[in-house]
Amino acid sequence: MPEKPLTEEPPAVSALSESGLLARIFPRLDIGGAHASATLLGPGDDAALVAAPDGRTLISIDTQVQDQDFRLQWNNGYRTTGFDVGWKAAAQNLSDINAMGGKATSLVVSLTLPPETPVSWVEDLADGLTAGIRELGATDCSVAGGDLGRGTEISVTVAVLGTLDGGNPVLRSGAAPGDILALAGTVGRAAAGLALLESAIPMNSLSTLQRALVETQCRPRPPLAAGPRAREAGASAMMDISDGLVRDAGRLAAASGVVLDLDPLELKRQAESLRPASDALTADPQVWVLGGGEDHGLLATFPAGIQLPSGFTAIGSVQAPGTQTGPGVTIAGRVAGARGWDHFAD
Amino acid sequence: MPEKPLTEEPPAVSALSESGLLARIFPRLDIGGAHASATLLGPGDDAALVAAPDGRTLISIDTQVQDQDFRLQWNNGYRTTGFDVGWKAAAQNLSDINAMGGKATSLVVSLTLPPETPVSWVEDLADGLTAGIRELGATDCSVAGGDLGRGTEISVTVAVLGTLDGGNPVLRSGAAPGDILALAGTVGRAAAGLALLESAIPMNSLSTLQRALVETQCRPRPPLAAGPRAREAGASAMMDISDGLVRDAGRLAAASGVVLDLDPLELKRQAESLRPASDALTADPQVWVLGGGEDHGLLATFPAGIQLPSGFTAIGSVQAPGTQTGPGVTIAGRVAGARGWDHFAD
Repeated sequence: MPEKPLTEEPPAVSALSESGLLARIFPRLDIGGAHASATLLGPGDDAALVAAPDGRTLISIDTQVQDQDFRLQWNNGYRTTGFDVGWKAAAQNLSDINAMGGKATSLVVSLTLPPETPVSWVEDLADGLTAGIRELGATDCSVAGGDLGRGTEISVTVAVLGTLDGGNPVLRSGAAPGDILALAGTVGRAAAGLALLESAIPMNSLSTLQRALVETQCRPRPPLAAGPRAREAGASAMMDISDGLVRDAGRLAAASGVVLDLDPLELKRQAESLRPASDALTADPQVWVLGGGEDHGLLATFPAGIQLPSGFTAIGSVQAPGTQTGPGVTIAGRVAGARGWDHFAD
Repeated sequence: MPEKPLTEEPPAVSALSESGLLARIFPRLDIGGAHASATLLGPGDDAALVAAPDGRTLISIDTQVQDQDFRLQWNNGYRTTGFDVGWKAAAQNLSDINAMGGKATSLVVSLTLPPETPVSWVEDLADGLTAGIRELGATDCSVAGGDLGRGTEISVTVAVLGTLDGGNPVLRSGAAPGDILALAGTVGRAAAGLALLESAIPMNSLSTLQRALVETQCRPRPPLAAGPRAREAGASAMMDISDGLVRDAGRLAAASGVVLDLDPLELKRQAESLRPASDALTADPQVWVLGGGEDHGLLATFPAGIQLPSGFTAIGSVQAPGTQTGPGVTIAGRVAGARGWDHFAD
C-alpha cells in the first residue's frame, strides 16, 4: 500500500457530489442560528420561507464574476480569497437594502464554480458571507438557501431580502431643490485600494494605511445602520454609491430632476485620506473620490432644517436645474466630469 | 459618404451602455402592467418592493450557464434562442414556488453577458421571460428588478418570490407510510428532447411529436396550478422533478425517512409518449423516465383517502423502510437504479 504523500493538492469541487459540497458549506452559514430570526424555513426544500412582518419585502440581486468584479490574482501578487468574495457579495447586497432605508432579512446564493475550484476556497467563501453579515451588523439576516452549478468562471450571485418595518422606502426620485446633500461612509477608498492591487507594490511592502485601502476594496464596510436612520429622520432621496460618486449622484439627480452640487472642500477632505495611495502612485486622489465605487457609502438628501442623522456629513446641496442644463451634478457650480464604471461602454 | 451596407452584423451588447441595454429590455418585461399586482416598486432604485400579503415570502434562486444548462448550438443544428433561455429561467424558478404549494409574486434577474452577445438575443430573452410568466399562468408575477454584468459566458440567474396565501408550505419531509405517491405533469419528455437535440437528426426532419419533445426541453411547462391545489388538498410532501424522477424521489424519501415505491405500469405509460424519440434513436425510454429532469413535473404524496386533486395521477405508494435497506426508491419492490444529473460528480 503506498504511503500517503506528505503534501496533497487541495481537493477540488469536482471530487465532491453536489450534496457533498453542500455538506461542506452549510455548517459555515449559521443557518437557523441566533442570527436567523427572519428565516422561517431554510435550505432543504425547493424554496425557503422568510418573514416579511409588514406584508412587503425588499428584494435586490447582484452578481460578481471572476476577472470582471475581482481577479483571482492581482498585479501586485495578492490572491483574492474566497473569504473576500463572500464578504463582498454580502456587503454589496446588504448595501442595496440599506440604500432603501431597510434592514436585510435573508440572502440566497447561487454559486457557479469551475470543477477545479479548491473546496477550501468555497468553504472560505461561506465563511466570508457569514462574517460579512455578522460584522456589518445585519443581525436578523442569514443565508436561507442557494443553488450550485458548474461553469468555466467563478460567478457568485446573491439575492437579498429586507424589511422596511412598516415605513416607506427612500427612493432616488425624492430630492427637491433646497435639500441638503449628505454622505454616510466613505468614497474613493475602494478605488484607491484597487489602484494599489493593480500596482507593482507587493502586499508585504504596503503600510498599514495602504493595507486599509486594499481592505476597503476587498471587504467593503457599508454603513448599515445609517440607511434605516436616514429613512426615520425623513431623508427625501437615497442610494448607495457603487459605481462612483459622480455617476451615482447623476442617477439620483436624473431621477429627481435636480442638480446636485458638491462642495469642493468636502471632496478634498475625502481625498485627504487617500494620500497613502495617491502619494505612492503619484495619482490624483480626486479621480478616486469622484469616479470610484465600491465603498458602498450612502448618498442621501434631507430637507433643510432636519438634523442630519448620526453618520451623515453634508457634502453639498440640491438645486433646481438651469433652463439650459437640466438635471446633473456640479462641483461648486461647474459641471462634474468624472464618471464611474459602466459594464458595457466607457 | 459610403452607402449603408445592405446587411449589418447585429449590434452587440458592447455597443450599448448599461442604461442603453436596460432601455432595450425594460419595455419587454411588462413591469407594473396588469400582471404585476404584487410588485409595489419596480426597477429604478437599489431594491424593488414586493407584496407579501401573509407576512411571509417564499424565495428560491436558480442559475443557467451556457454550455452547462444549454448549448448555444446543439449537435443537430438547433440554435438555442434567447427566448428559450428566458422561458426556461422563468419556468424552473416558478416551478420551485409551485413545489412548495405557492404562487409566484415576483422575479429578479441577473444577466452575465459576453460583450459580443447580440442585443437581439437579449431582447428575445426578455420576451421569453415575459411569455413564460404569462403562458404558464403566473398571473400575479412580474420582473421586479435585476442586474447586468459582463463575463466570458452567458449566465442567467433568477430569484423568485412567492406567497402561500396564509397556508403552510408543503415540505419534502412530510411523507408517511400508507400515503399515495402522485405525479402532476410529465417525466422524461425533456430528456427525450435533449437526446434529439444531441442526435444527428436535423430539426427540419423531426416529426410534430418529436418537435414537441424538443419543446419540453427548451420551453418546459411546469403545472403551476397543481402546486397550490395539492397544498389545499392536504398533500403531505411535495417537490418538483428537476434532476430526474429517481434522484428527486430519493431526496423526498430521505427527507421523509420512507420508501417510495413506483408502479411499473405507470412508468411504462410515461415511457409510451417518448416513443417518437426512442424509436428514432433506438434508445430505452425508461432511462429518460427514471433519470431525466427538467420537465418540472410535481412529485407529491397524499394521505390515503384524500381524493387526488385534478392534474395528479397516482404513480406509486409510500412504505416504511425495511430494517436492512433504509429510505429509498423502489420499482415494484426492487431498488431503483437510474439516477439523474449531479453537477459535480457522476
